[in-house]
Amino acid sequence: MPEPQGTIFARILAGEIPCHKIYEDDRVLSFLDVGPLSRGHLLVIPRECKAFLHELSDESAAAIGRVLPRICSALLEATGAEHYNVLQNNGSLANQEVMHVHFHVIPRYADGSGLELAWRSGSLEQGEALARRIRESMPGS
Amino acid sequence: MPEPQGTIFARILAGEIPCHKIYEDDRVLSFLDVGPLSRGHLLVIPRECKAFLHELSDESAAAIGRVLPRICSALLEATGAEHYNVLQNNGSLANQEVMHVHFHVIPRYADGSGLELAWRSGSLEQGEALARRIRESMPGS
Repeated sequence: MPEPQGTIFARILAGEIPCHKIYEDDRVLSFLDVGPLSRGHLLVIPRECKAFLHELSDESAAAIGRVLPRICSALLEATGAEHYNVLQNNGSLANQEVMHVHFHVIPRYADGSGLELAWRSGSLEQGEALARRIRESMPGS
Repeated sequence: MPEPQGTIFARILAGEIPCHKIYEDDRVLSFLDVGPLSRGHLLVIPRECKAFLHELSDESAAAIGRVLPRICSALLEATGAEHYNVLQNNGSLANQEVMHVHFHVIPRYADGSGLELAWRSGSLEQGEALARRIRESMPGS
């Protein structure tokens, strides 16, 4: 299990490392990514120190969700971007580098800067059996 | 402006098209993606018909955020996946195809199936001036 307390984001939250702050409230902090994929690439993180989204409390996750539309709106207004991706990576296979939950908001510009995706979709097989297994695995179900 | 009322997701919400349902409440619906990038790829959408995340109400966005950790937890439990990406695309340049807000939850497996990303990070320039412009563009600021 990764130890999220020691991450660079925990140190930013503690005020030990500076950031270019976009927004904060009692559960959420947002700041510019220092290694941006495009101009305006920012991060939204919970104050709660968890490595993965599935570990996060309902309250922290709701607080991030609640403010995302306004942060995205401000980002578009300030940069002039019209298209963007929101991305949240969990685990090394999924490109997570800092083991503290973070949502990337990444403008995508006409010059091609932003998030580059390869989309190789397959077809859904035995969908109902799979959906049932996921439903039955929901916490509290 | 796209017209989100006519999308396939609006028709799923209206019950006109079936889906393999994972979860629902009064603001949110989750179901399997019929063109999965990997086994268990699912979608989480608001009942509110908006094309883009920055248009969504705080309440709908908070409701999606709140349930995401539990949906992700169930997905991992049911599939055995340990790594995953959450992705939400806005606009054609950002790979959005259906003009109704949707969050993808995409397991990433050791066989390489899942979301393929190219990560070409740059360096942050004039960060404080940019952060200030975004802060000053926040609705209500």
